[in-house]
Amino acid sequence: MQKLQVLENLWYVAALSGELTDKPLARMICGVPMVLYRGENGNLVALEDRCPHRQAPLSMGNIIGDQIQCDYHGFMFDGTGACTHIPRQDKIPASMGVRAFAVVERWGFVWLWWGDREKADDSAIPHLPWTEEDHQRTQYFYFHVKSNHQLMADNLLDISHVDFLHKHSIASKIGDTEKQTEAPKVTFETTTEGNVVTTVRKVHNTLLAGQTAKWHGSEGPVTRISTGRWEPPNCCILKLQFAEPDGTINETISMEHIMTPETASTCHYFMDWTWDFGGPDGYPTHADVDQEQRGIIDGDDIPMVEAQQRTIEQFGADARDVPVKQDLHVSSVHRVLKRMYEDAGMTAAAEVTRMAAE
Amino acid sequence: MQKLQVLENLWYVAALSGELTDKPLARMICGVPMVLYRGENGNLVALEDRCPHRQAPLSMGNIIGDQIQCDYHGFMFDGTGACTHIPRQDKIPASMGVRAFAVVERWGFVWLWWGDREKADDSAIPHLPWTEEDHQRTQYFYFHVKSNHQLMADNLLDISHVDFLHKHSIASKIGDTEKQTEAPKVTFETTTEGNVVTTVRKVHNTLLAGQTAKWHGSEGPVTRISTGRWEPPNCCILKLQFAEPDGTINETISMEHIMTPETASTCHYFMDWTWDFGGPDGYPTHADVDQEQRGIIDGDDIPMVEAQQRTIEQFGADARDVPVKQDLHVSSVHRVLKRMYEDAGMTAAAEVTRMAAE
Amino acid sequence: MQKLQVLENLWYVAALSGELTDKPLARMICGVPMVLYRGENGNLVALEDRCPHRQAPLSMGNIIGDQIQCDYHGFMFDGTGACTHIPRQDKIPASMGVRAFAVVERWGFVWLWWGDREKADDSAIPHLPWTEEDHQRTQYFYFHVKSNHQLMADNLLDISHVDFLHKHSIASKIGDTEKQTEAPKVTFETTTEGNVVTTVRKVHNTLLAGQTAKWHGSEGPVTRISTGRWEPPNCCILKLQFAEPDGTINETISMEHIMTPETASTCHYFMDWTWDFGGPDGYPTHADVDQEQRGIIDGDDIPMVEAQQRTIEQFGADARDVPVKQDLHVSSVHRVLKRMYEDAGMTAAAEVTRMAAE
Repeated sequence: MQKLQVLENLWYVAALSGELTDKPLARMICGVPMVLYRGENGNLVALEDRCPHRQAPLSMGNIIGDQIQCDYHGFMFDGTGACTHIPRQDKIPASMGVRAFAVVERWGFVWLWWGDREKADDSAIPHLPWTEEDHQRTQYFYFHVKSNHQLMADNLLDISHVDFLHKHSIASKIGDTEKQTEAPKVTFETTTEGNVVTTVRKVHNTLLAGQTAKWHGSEGPVTRISTGRWEPPNCCILKLQFAEPDGTINETISMEHIMTPETASTCHYFMDWTWDFGGPDGYPTHADVDQEQRGIIDGDDIPMVEAQQRTIEQFGADARDVPVKQDLHVSSVHRVLKRMYEDAGMTAAAEVTRMAAE
Repeated sequence: MQKLQVLENLWYVAALSGELTDKPLARMICGVPMVLYRGENGNLVALEDRCPHRQAPLSMGNIIGDQIQCDYHGFMFDGTGACTHIPRQDKIPASMGVRAFAVVERWGFVWLWWGDREKADDSAIPHLPWTEEDHQRTQYFYFHVKSNHQLMADNLLDISHVDFLHKHSIASKIGDTEKQTEAPKVTFETTTEGNVVTTVRKVHNTLLAGQTAKWHGSEGPVTRISTGRWEPPNCCILKLQFAEPDGTINETISMEHIMTPETASTCHYFMDWTWDFGGPDGYPTHADVDQEQRGIIDGDDIPMVEAQQRTIEQFGADARDVPVKQDLHVSSVHRVLKRMYEDAGMTAAAEVTRMAAE
Repeated sequence: MQKLQVLENLWYVAALSGELTDKPLARMICGVPMVLYRGENGNLVALEDRCPHRQAPLSMGNIIGDQIQCDYHGFMFDGTGACTHIPRQDKIPASMGVRAFAVVERWGFVWLWWGDREKADDSAIPHLPWTEEDHQRTQYFYFHVKSNHQLMADNLLDISHVDFLHKHSIASKIGDTEKQTEAPKVTFETTTEGNVVTTVRKVHNTLLAGQTAKWHGSEGPVTRISTGRWEPPNCCILKLQFAEPDGTINETISMEHIMTPETASTCHYFMDWTWDFGGPDGYPTHADVDQEQRGIIDGDDIPMVEAQQRTIEQFGADARDVPVKQDLHVSSVHRVLKRMYEDAGMTAAAEVTRMAAE
């Protein structure tokens, strides 16, 4: 696939908060091997994962206080990437340092600024306050995916696949599968404001099935409302609600699906699933959500997206997508990306979005 | 190795008849990922293995009647590759289709026409009527091989390796192995007519050993007659017979070994083994033949050919073959291939046949 | 990493003596697949691992007397690479031969001359007589390493890593790990004569720990003397001694660590460990040494060096080393290598040694 091109001066999720401890975490972010850790004072650190002395990965070393010590020759580095100690040597060469990245912990995720450090601006981090609200429960997930980050994100920008790919878990009831003889009416509306694309999609008067029926907990028809908000680089903020005929909404599920490039053909997939029903201990429990979501994502989505990636690699330039009406949300996001890549002087848009040449 | 170049307007075997069912079969043929299936009406279908909507492999979907439905968004396609159904959308875009290939089922194999569809001509399929004769039994095989298709085919075009590579199974008795002190006399005759090369090779007055002795079922010396007919692209039609001193022939084994390119360095190997002795139930049974042939081909031939492939890749242009007298059949086929590749404006002959530059 | 460039007209170790038997050994040396064996007369043979007839690896064949027979068609070759026998054919084509390499068995290693055969000169083989002395015991090792040969050699040219990477096995006692609060004084002296670089490094008045304490067998402080002699292409001759306060030396360990390129990013690592203490049967026994050294090399060194290789491949040209004072031995060897590569018209020095551009 294409060489990795990464849009700059944006926040990318590098890890879940719970992943960072006083043990080094090695992870390639945006094509750069990094070591991430939480220092003794609680500060988060993200460095290039190499000792400048002999290129040993710092992630094989140990955290001592707020610093990391290379396991090969004992050199130590602080959170700015500066070398603070060379065994048996007082003078530290000026070039003995590694690149450090700005990181901020918020909403249960660790956000890394990819770009000019002085431009890093916390206020540009997506706003996800429901993950901290008392009446909500939140479960976090990390998945590794062998596909380009945008291909995985496209899956989340596209709700129409739910009735097919997830027919055994979270689909609505649509009659016989191949012809959707009883398929309920669907309406949707997409708006683009600046670099943010939002879609509200309603499946009217539908019967729920599988897990959705269990979450909702009642028999009759509802309006299934999916709200999707996409913010660059690749944060998909989804809400799923079931409205009674009288408009009452008793369940809201908020989900963030956030993709970070690892290489041009692999990515990190961070997620939370936040729900406001079932009380503090009722169904679904954290364990229920964990099992259900892993079944759907590991069982359905990731195998499909990884298969798309292989197909695209095998067919090469012949594999241009043919969009249909229901792809309006995906297509709108692709148009924003096209503009952003072009503004950045990057050529990746055609490959990343597989938009037909116009 | 070389980039894959495939001779056009020829029939390639894509599958055994028994492999095609109402479940999709994913297989790369001549460098193209394909999905193959048998529709409800018995018709065989071969399509590019990708949904033009979003490049999901169709082979992950389901067969419904004579059509295939993509598992990602429910799009359906018929045997011509045309899209027949898009969920929640009436109008089907003109470009929503995939390439379909002509396929014909004959002699227990599924033949795929690689080239201009309008030129597809059933009468050009090799004639293998013995596979359907009442007094014969036929056992079919499929092998995947990590070598160029021609390298695997060359193995079948070359009977002289039998006494060495297969010394524990189907060799004749030749005295001490290294010097063949009791090696019987061998004569052979090769003729090329158009693109077909035929060789008759006789080992005179030889004692059989191993499995050949069991097939023949008698002790005394025989003349072992091997007849090989090669038709492009790579169908090796072999007959093995044992002639008594008075010329009587009691056993004829007909074998087809047919290679189809997968990539430039891997291929599909289809085979049948048809025998006219032992009655309907006697030795060798289908199970005997299955076990014996897998032992020979999986145990001896494929490891050797895959090792040749690796050696050729490692040594590159230095690895030109030095042919000897017994290679007349192989060399004659290589000359036909050289002419066919040149006529097609392809440069693959030198790499595929590793003929020394002249 | 870089394409493989190999310095010529030098002896490379191809195998341990004990590895060569009357069964063929397949091994890629300096980028060339070779077959190595010991003929009936005891002569060692090293040939390109391919039959010139059809490129079958000779290593799949059998040794018959002093010759090797290809398993595919029974062709035989002698130790000069000449074909001596073609089944059913009297005349042997002039081109039916493979390249043979000069090999000499000495000090328990098999040395292969890479270069012009007529320049091969036994006297240029490193002199390792202690491996044959009666009062010494010697244990031999072979390791396969997924790193460039020089990166693995650099590990042996650099004693300063012992206190960190081997802190659980052969480090000296240095107080708290991160700051070496009780770290003893170290002195070292490096001399370059022609292409040979020698360093004597002394750790003064140190307490031993772990295995070194067990080898020495006494409690008090000693001077730990490491002598390293490097000869091209990559023979690291190390001696480790423990001197009592009065200068008495009771234990000498001689180690050869010799690297041979396999590919640009993999190598062979041959080693002996020779010790003059413990009597003929006392600690450490051959089994002790085998277990201890495998623990250190397989457990510490090879994982670290393979990780460096991956880091260098990932970071590319950004990964230039920043040398420090203790790297004098490594740096001196790199300067010799730089000159040797330049004299040979090769560009590999910068990549192999990762020296910063000057």
